[in-house]
Amino acid sequence: MALAAAKLGLKTIIYGPDKDACASFVASKSIIADYDDEEALTDFANSVDIVTYEFENVPAQTASIVSALTPLHPNGKSLAICQDRLLEKQFLNKLNIPTTRFSSVTSSDELEQALKTIGTPSILKTRRLGYDGKGQTLITAPEMAAEAWQAVNKHEAVLEGFVEFEKEISIIGARNQAGKFNAYAPSENIHKNHILYKTIVPARIIEETAKQAEKVAKKISDALNYVGVFAVEFFVSPPSENGTNQLLVNEIAPRVHNSGHWTMDACLVSQFEQHIRAVCDWPLGTTTRHSDAIMTNILGPDTADWQEYANVPDTSLHLYDKGEAKAGRKMGHMTQTYPMGELPVQP
Amino acid sequence: MALAAAKLGLKTIIYGPDKDACASFVASKSIIADYDDEEALTDFANSVDIVTYEFENVPAQTASIVSALTPLHPNGKSLAICQDRLLEKQFLNKLNIPTTRFSSVTSSDELEQALKTIGTPSILKTRRLGYDGKGQTLITAPEMAAEAWQAVNKHEAVLEGFVEFEKEISIIGARNQAGKFNAYAPSENIHKNHILYKTIVPARIIEETAKQAEKVAKKISDALNYVGVFAVEFFVSPPSENGTNQLLVNEIAPRVHNSGHWTMDACLVSQFEQHIRAVCDWPLGTTTRHSDAIMTNILGPDTADWQEYANVPDTSLHLYDKGEAKAGRKMGHMTQTYPMGELPVQP
Repeated sequence: MALAAAKLGLKTIIYGPDKDACASFVASKSIIADYDDEEALTDFANSVDIVTYEFENVPAQTASIVSALTPLHPNGKSLAICQDRLLEKQFLNKLNIPTTRFSSVTSSDELEQALKTIGTPSILKTRRLGYDGKGQTLITAPEMAAEAWQAVNKHEAVLEGFVEFEKEISIIGARNQAGKFNAYAPSENIHKNHILYKTIVPARIIEETAKQAEKVAKKISDALNYVGVFAVEFFVSPPSENGTNQLLVNEIAPRVHNSGHWTMDACLVSQFEQHIRAVCDWPLGTTTRHSDAIMTNILGPDTADWQEYANVPDTSLHLYDKGEAKAGRKMGHMTQTYPMGELPVQP
Repeated sequence: MALAAAKLGLKTIIYGPDKDACASFVASKSIIADYDDEEALTDFANSVDIVTYEFENVPAQTASIVSALTPLHPNGKSLAICQDRLLEKQFLNKLNIPTTRFSSVTSSDELEQALKTIGTPSILKTRRLGYDGKGQTLITAPEMAAEAWQAVNKHEAVLEGFVEFEKEISIIGARNQAGKFNAYAPSENIHKNHILYKTIVPARIIEETAKQAEKVAKKISDALNYVGVFAVEFFVSPPSENGTNQLLVNEIAPRVHNSGHWTMDACLVSQFEQHIRAVCDWPLGTTTRHSDAIMTNILGPDTADWQEYANVPDTSLHLYDKGEAKAGRKMGHMTQTYPMGELPVQP
């Protein structure tokens, strides 16, 4: 986002607790302080024109301190809902947007009760702070309740029914302050060990499903009065007898998203620039793509092979300079592009 | 270049005399010091792995101090030749690469003599530090010698014969440490008031001319043992009876070049990334383009209309955050892209 801002001639100041945040190497200034440091937050908010974030686990209180002084986009409501799996699912269902079946769990007893309604297999997920499969545990039999409750460290959780799906897709959408919405082509996401492995664009889905996904994304952003770029992840059911797919929303990310990284190399305006445009009240950029794309994440120790990746023809390499290449950590990605309609995958 | 380095996970430190250099806002550190500050140069050279530059008027002595401590690419020889119009033309002619006819001028008397050989109209250009038409004066009659010599402030100069040309093109080439060379498609450059106004890609020239231009660019870079991205500007003569064009080299720029800015939006690997790849001894990236493009510079006060530019469909806007929008100053550019073969211009 700092790089995208620089493209548009804008300066950035980075706020966060990490003294080696890679964004700080491409910003005019960094403020290294905790999310609850009210004085530092005040200084920060007073030194910028607009505040945004690229991490949905910014505490609500932090957002509230900042937004009292300086415009904050996306708004605190979006942040509060999207950082809590329970609030998120309740919000979606209120909008008549289907999700997996779920039940709130605050104790081992509640989990036992919930398992009676939701059944097994099901997945217990902490309400907050989970990502890339962290804070989740699979429950295959009702007897596993106590063990599962320990596995999520007795944190408030949601029990989700297991769903059969054919594939996962996401919509990267943008909405600006005037309420204008647009979206990139749906991305098809392939995970390995709960971590995004590849994104294929365009997703191999029928036109009707693509339109429906975009419609749901727009509805969500309107309901949140959202400003900025966001991602909606969907489970796509196997086709019914009439050939249509059902879409369940898995998750909303109130930020630029890994499954939208392909836009940097296959679109004129990337999701990062789009986000900056939206939060700065610029007109939204075009979301048309000039190429089809396959994005592959570079995880943990695989980063050591960067020279090999740098040599792959027609591939754009991105390395994040994040420091230690811990197992499973997203250290970079590469995007292979193809002329439109020439993706080397089965339709 | 700092943004391109960040994409590849590399940190940059900026050295230069300007305390508001826009690169300093996207670098991990800036050293603001003069080009002759030996102590600061030593500190700088010792704090980085590789040194490069984006400005051919870095003094030779600066390059020499730095390169004694740290690898410098492109090398000092390239810098010395390309920052001096006389050395550059002599170098090219030694390689049997045609240029305009020229004569060295170090006094008003020499200019009078030179005008007898070169004739009028001709152009007197300072050997060093000229750009965008600065340090140049047109001579239309021999009597103008004294006046012209005043106009270039009695600086050592070159008198160049005026050439009839059909268009100007440039080649943006890259050469890495292993001597591998590649180039982007030739760009066609349209100037207004001696300043680049538009670049059209691909240039409207025949295939043979394009190949010849690329061949000349390769020859130049081999002779300089050049490492990095460079631009060669050519005058293209009107076609001869057999339909071929003659190419005269106008100028070599030992750096990324304004006529290569379109690569940011129409190629997977931009000229900036290519330069970073070359100087860091990475494999060169692909130079194929996915789109045709028209790049338009945003000069001086026109920058005030940025909101209008941000709204042009299928256009990527770049603003440089350079400060004061003086008349003629390059403050940004925009690139309109088109599917291959669909440029809205006469062939």
